[in-house]
Amino acid sequence: MLSLESSTDPRWVDVALGNLDAVLHDHLHCELKAASNATSLVARYAMHPRLVEGLSELAREELVHVQQVFAEMGRRGVGARPPGEDGYARALRRALDDKRGDPLLDRLTVAAVIEARSCERFQLLATHAPTEALRGWYHELFVSEARHHRLFASLAEELYGEAQAQARLRALAAREAEIIAKAEIVARIH
Amino acid sequence: MLSLESSTDPRWVDVALGNLDAVLHDHLHCELKAASNATSLVARYAMHPRLVEGLSELAREELVHVQQVFAEMGRRGVGARPPGEDGYARALRRALDDKRGDPLLDRLTVAAVIEARSCERFQLLATHAPTEALRGWYHELFVSEARHHRLFASLAEELYGEAQAQARLRALAAREAEIIAKAEIVARIH
Repeated sequence: MLSLESSTDPRWVDVALGNLDAVLHDHLHCELKAASNATSLVARYAMHPRLVEGLSELAREELVHVQQVFAEMGRRGVGARPPGEDGYARALRRALDDKRGDPLLDRLTVAAVIEARSCERFQLLATHAPTEALRGWYHELFVSEARHHRLFASLAEELYGEAQAQARLRALAAREAEIIAKAEIVARIH
Repeated sequence: MLSLESSTDPRWVDVALGNLDAVLHDHLHCELKAASNATSLVARYAMHPRLVEGLSELAREELVHVQQVFAEMGRRGVGARPPGEDGYARALRRALDDKRGDPLLDRLTVAAVIEARSCERFQLLATHAPTEALRGWYHELFVSEARHHRLFASLAEELYGEAQAQARLRALAAREAEIIAKAEIVARIH
């Protein structure tokens, strides 16, 4: 369902739970980037009503998550900083930089894969986080990211046809598995 | 209260109501830019909790407005396109490009002035729009933009002190009045 071609290394869970403050800080900026990316897609591709409707709603949900993450950081006394480098998203965009894709199809495909990986990792946190409140919250996030993954994938299918959209998604999922396999295991969402 | 140094030319109301479809299209992109700008400020200045809390909420509200404007365009059979040039916002940013301001203070000040002018014009539409439903909606937008203006101004005052923040706002409001006076009267929010 999530189109991913690999599962997260089980050691990631220990690393993440060993520094949940760092995971939350990375998560804050993931949600901000997701909101910002969706808003930018709505503006640039305002001629597609389903995209405008779906992604303006998605951006609102990501901003609710921003507020939830920030509140959790506040409860834990963790301050926020500006975002750091986002090597993962950059590597995904570069993986599609082969002049074979349409820019919108590629943006939807990258977003679909990022949502899928977030979703998979939130499910791990929903199982292993230290408190019931955190496990419940990560479960809600898992459900929401699965829906967001499906939205990006279905917008791509609607606009480019199932065959082309699914081929592009499979190609990127394969590259994403390599990118994740090579990356250090760190206390971040990706 | 709104810090503006001039009132909109009364002829603007006729021009705007003469092509409300164009006003709505411009309005859609104003709301998208406002959401995008607020999200970007939250990420870049995540170390300021009041800014994160205030502007993440503001971005959510702007996205609700995006959805409202898009629904109204749909009812009127008006399609959306990507955004055009935004000469007004660019002129405002350029007006503060004097190396005397702090980048965050200047971004808050530009946003405060844009919200103020939108607010003033929504009030005109709240009085003169052709249907009661539109007048009621523009009144709600007027109230919301007044609150947003106040939020940007008060964040600037909190972070830079009242004296510096208010001086910068007065300086920009004076330049904004000149920019508006020189601009063509068109069926746009600004």
